Amino acid sequence: MQTIRVILAGPRGRMGREAVLLMERTPHFELVGAVDYKHHGTKLCDIEGMPALAVPVYGTLEACLQEINADVLLDLTNPETGKLHIHTALKYNLRSVIGTTGFTEEEITHLTATAEEKKVGTIIAPNFAVGAVLMMKFAQVAAKYFGDVEIIELHHDQKLDAPSGTALKTVDLIRSVREPKRQGHPNEVEQLPGARGAKVDGIHVHSVRLPGLIAHQEVLFGGDGQMLTIRHDSFNRASFMSGVKVAIETVMGIETLIYGLENIID
Amino acid sequence: MQTIRVILAGPRGRMGREAVLLMERTPHFELVGAVDYKHHGTKLCDIEGMPALAVPVYGTLEACLQEINADVLLDLTNPETGKLHIHTALKYNLRSVIGTTGFTEEEITHLTATAEEKKVGTIIAPNFAVGAVLMMKFAQVAAKYFGDVEIIELHHDQKLDAPSGTALKTVDLIRSVREPKRQGHPNEVEQLPGARGAKVDGIHVHSVRLPGLIAHQEVLFGGDGQMLTIRHDSFNRASFMSGVKVAIETVMGIETLIYGLENIID
Amino acid sequence: MQTIRVILAGPRGRMGREAVLLMERTPHFELVGAVDYKHHGTKLCDIEGMPALAVPVYGTLEACLQEINADVLLDLTNPETGKLHIHTALKYNLRSVIGTTGFTEEEITHLTATAEEKKVGTIIAPNFAVGAVLMMKFAQVAAKYFGDVEIIELHHDQKLDAPSGTALKTVDLIRSVREPKRQGHPNEVEQLPGARGAKVDGIHVHSVRLPGLIAHQEVLFGGDGQMLTIRHDSFNRASFMSGVKVAIETVMGIETLIYGLENIID
Amino acid sequence: MQTIRVILAGPRGRMGREAVLLMERTPHFELVGAVDYKHHGTKLCDIEGMPALAVPVYGTLEACLQEINADVLLDLTNPETGKLHIHTALKYNLRSVIGTTGFTEEEITHLTATAEEKKVGTIIAPNFAVGAVLMMKFAQVAAKYFGDVEIIELHHDQKLDAPSGTALKTVDLIRSVREPKRQGHPNEVEQLPGARGAKVDGIHVHSVRLPGLIAHQEVLFGGDGQMLTIRHDSFNRASFMSGVKVAIETVMGIETLIYGLENIID
Repeated sequence: MQTIRVILAGPRGRMGREAVLLMERTPHFELVGAVDYKHHGTKLCDIEGMPALAVPVYGTLEACLQEINADVLLDLTNPETGKLHIHTALKYNLRSVIGTTGFTEEEITHLTATAEEKKVGTIIAPNFAVGAVLMMKFAQVAAKYFGDVEIIELHHDQKLDAPSGTALKTVDLIRSVREPKRQGHPNEVEQLPGARGAKVDGIHVHSVRLPGLIAHQEVLFGGDGQMLTIRHDSFNRASFMSGVKVAIETVMGIETLIYGLENIID
Repeated sequence: MQTIRVILAGPRGRMGREAVLLMERTPHFELVGAVDYKHHGTKLCDIEGMPALAVPVYGTLEACLQEINADVLLDLTNPETGKLHIHTALKYNLRSVIGTTGFTEEEITHLTATAEEKKVGTIIAPNFAVGAVLMMKFAQVAAKYFGDVEIIELHHDQKLDAPSGTALKTVDLIRSVREPKRQGHPNEVEQLPGARGAKVDGIHVHSVRLPGLIAHQEVLFGGDGQMLTIRHDSFNRASFMSGVKVAIETVMGIETLIYGLENIID
Repeated sequence: MQTIRVILAGPRGRMGREAVLLMERTPHFELVGAVDYKHHGTKLCDIEGMPALAVPVYGTLEACLQEINADVLLDLTNPETGKLHIHTALKYNLRSVIGTTGFTEEEITHLTATAEEKKVGTIIAPNFAVGAVLMMKFAQVAAKYFGDVEIIELHHDQKLDAPSGTALKTVDLIRSVREPKRQGHPNEVEQLPGARGAKVDGIHVHSVRLPGLIAHQEVLFGGDGQMLTIRHDSFNRASFMSGVKVAIETVMGIETLIYGLENIID
Repeated sequence: MQTIRVILAGPRGRMGREAVLLMERTPHFELVGAVDYKHHGTKLCDIEGMPALAVPVYGTLEACLQEINADVLLDLTNPETGKLHIHTALKYNLRSVIGTTGFTEEEITHLTATAEEKKVGTIIAPNFAVGAVLMMKFAQVAAKYFGDVEIIELHHDQKLDAPSGTALKTVDLIRSVREPKRQGHPNEVEQLPGARGAKVDGIHVHSVRLPGLIAHQEVLFGGDGQMLTIRHDSFNRASFMSGVKVAIETVMGIETLIYGLENIID
C-alpha cells in the first residue's frame, strides 16, 4: 500500500496521543508534521510524554502547510479549532479527516458543496468507534428480519445519563426500517415499575450501571425459536483508532465530503 | 451406589414423563411402581407415549403400597394429591420427595414434626431447577464481596409478569446479606423513564421479553476494574430432573423434613 | 399486504408441521392445499396432530394443481420429491420455495435457465435459519475492519463432528475477504495441545459440547481496545420458519432462481 | 466500623498506587505510614504522581515502626522484600497482609508456626482478584451437581501461554470434587485437530487470544435442558483492590497465618 503522509493537529489530547501511536505502528502511514499552538518550532519528541519522533511541530496549520507537503490532515483538536482547520484544508486543497463535533446541518451542507466543487476528499467523523458503528449497522439490517428487539447498554456507574447516546442512536436506526409496534404480551404487567425498561416505539432499552464496567452494548433480536445478539465492548480510548485508520485510507479515494463513519463502512 | 427403589405418582404429567426417562437412564434408580388414578391394574408400557417398561400401575398410593416394597415415593402430581400422598407416605414410614406447591407454613411445621418423630426422610421441593438454585446461592455469596449488583432476566414474550419470580427471589437473597444502598451515580438521570429498570433497595432489575427465548437470568456484579456474571439458561422441562435426582439421593440419608432444594444444595 | 396463496408439500414432516403453524399465524399467508402421498382426498384436519384446517390434501402435486389455484408451492419434503416438485412447478409456471437439499451445481444451472426463460420466481434454500445467515453475513463484513477473529460454536454433546458446518461456512466467508494471517503472539505456546483450538488460515475455531445445549455460535472480533461479538442461538426447529416466511415473500417479486437464503437477505 | 491504621510498603508500584487510592476512598482505612527505600524522610505527597497526602515515608519498615503505631502492614513490593517484611512484622507483633509471590511450602509452614505461636494475624495472598477466586469456588460447587463442564478463557494476544494459569487452577478445583470422566459423545470426531480444545481428565479448555481483550474466563456447565455459566472479566489492575480490602479487614480478626485469598472467602 502506498504511504500516506499525515499532518496531525492536536497531538497532546487523549485522542491525539493514541493517534501518534497509530502512526508509529502503521507501516503505510507517515507522520510528517504536527500542529500544536503551544509548541511551535519544536519537534514532537521534545513534548513531554511523546515518543522519540523528530516530526516538526507548528503553531498553526497554515504555518505547517508553508513547509510541509502532506496528503491528509487529521484533526483531533476541539470543535472551534476543528471548524477553522477544515476551512484551511479546503482552501489549500488538502484532504482532511476531522474528528471533532459541533457542526450544524447548515455548515455540513456548505462544506459539502465546497468539497465537491474543489474535488477535495473530506471526512467528518464525530465518533470513530468502528465496532460501535458496525453494531448499529448490523442491528438495522437484522431489524428487517426480526420484528422484536431489545437493547441492553452497560456502563460504569459514573455515567449520568440513561439511556446512552449510542443506545438512542441504535433505536433511531432500527425505527427507520420498521413500523412502530407494541412488543411483549398485550396483557403484560410491570409488577415493579421500570422492570421492562424505557420504551421507544415498542423498543425496550435497559441501562445497567456498575462500577468496574466501561462501555458495552448488546442488541438482542428474538424470533421463532432463535435469538441473534450483537454486542460491542469498548475497553479504552484506543478503540477509536481503527476508525481513524479507515477514515484516513478512505479519504484518499474520494472527492467529496462524507459525514459520519457509518457512511464509509459497509 | 446402592439401587434406590422408587414409586412414581403422576407419570403422565409433563414432569412425570421426564421422571420416567430419568429412572430409565439412571443405573442406581429403579422404578418399581406407578400411581395413576386413570390406569389402575395396567402396566406403564400400556399407557400411550410411555416407554416399554412393565412397571405395575395402581389407582391409589395405598393400593400400590399393599403390593410394592419401595424406598422412596416421588410425587409429581398436583397440590391436592401431593398433600394427600405426603400424609400417606409418612403413615407408611415411606421416604418421599414431593414436587408440588401449595403447602402453607403451618402445614410445613406440622409435617416436619411428624417426619422427625417418625424419623422418615421427606423433601418438599416446589422448584427442582438445580442450576437456578445454584445461581441464587452464588449470587448471595458474591453480594458479600461486591457491593453493586444488577439483574437481567430474559423470557419469552408470552410471560405476563415482570420481573420474574426467580429475579425477585434472587433480590431477596441478596438483600439478606447486605444493607440497603443506592447504586449508580447520585445525580444519574433517567432521560427515558424505566431505563434504569425496577429498583428494590438499590438493586436494579431488568426484564427482557422476546419471542424465541425460554427462561434465562444473569446476575451481574461490578467492582473495581472487574465484573462477575452468573447466568442460568433453562431450555426445557428436562432441566428439573437434575434436582429430582439430587432430592431422591439426599432423602435416603436424612431423618427429617427439608423444604426447598436450596437447603439440600451447598 | 396482499394475501399469498400457498400449497404446502410435506405437511407431516417436522418442518412441515411448523410451516402449517406459520401459515395459521401469518395474516397474509393462506394455505390453500397440501400434498401428502399418504392422505389423498382428505382434509388437513383429518390427519393426526394437525390443526382444525379444512384444507384439501392431494396425493400428488399435479393432482393438486388440477383443482387448486395458488401463488407459491412450499416444498418441505425430501431431496427426491423436492427435485420432482421443482420441475412440476416450473412446468405449471408456479412460483416455488424448495427447502430440500441435494441439488448438484449442474442441476442448479439448468433449473436457473428454465426459471429465467419462463420468468417464474424460484428459491432453493437448504437452510432457512435467518439468524444464522445474518450472523455469517455480519461476520464477513466485520472481518473487513477487524483483522483478528475467533469462533466459538457450542452444541449438545450428541453431536459427532467438530467443528460444526456453520462454523466452517463462517470461516470460508471470512477468508473470502481477508488475506491468510497468523493470529496470536508469534511466540505463543500451547502448554496443552488443542488449547488454541482448530486453526484455518489463522482463524481459530473452538467447539464446546455439553448436554442441555442446543445449537449456538459466537463470532468474536478483537481490535484496539474493543471487541465485537455476533452470537446466534438456535433453540428449536421453529427457528427455520422466519426464513421460510422471507423466502415466500421474496419469491413473489422475482422472475429468476435464487439458490441460498444468504442471497435474498441483505 | 473501627478505623484500621495501615502502613503501606511499595507505594510507587502499580499495585501500590492503586492501594493508595483504596486507602483514600475507604472511610475505615487510614494510611499512617509508607515504606519506600528511595524516599526516606519525605511525605507521600512529595513523590511524583501521588495524591496530596501528608503521610510520612520511611526508607525501611523498621525505621517506620520506630515512629508509627499501626494495626496492619500492607506489603505490595517484590518477592525478596516481601519475605523480609513478613519476618519484621512478626518480630514486632504487627499484623500483615503480604501480596507478593515466591514463598516455598517450607517457608509457609515455618511462618505459620511463628504466627500461631505469637498469635499475630497474617495473610499471604499472591492473587487478590476476589472475582476470580469466587468464580473458581463457585465452579467447584457447581461441579458437584453438573457432571459436564468446559472452560473458555479469553486474553489479549500478547499472552504467550495457553491455557492460562487461572484456567488450570479452575480445572484442578473441579477435578478435586469429581471422578475423571470422558465428556462429549464417545464417537465424536475432531475433523480439524484442536477443535475440541485441550483435555484434562475430560474437562475441555479453550483459549481465545485477541487484541483488545484483557483477561476473561467463562466456566460453562451443561445438564438436562439447562446451562449454568460463571464468568469473570478483569478490566484492569484496580480489580485486585477488593481482595486487598477483604484481606485487611479479615487479618484484624485472626491469630494465625492464612495462605491464599480463597481461604478467607466463603
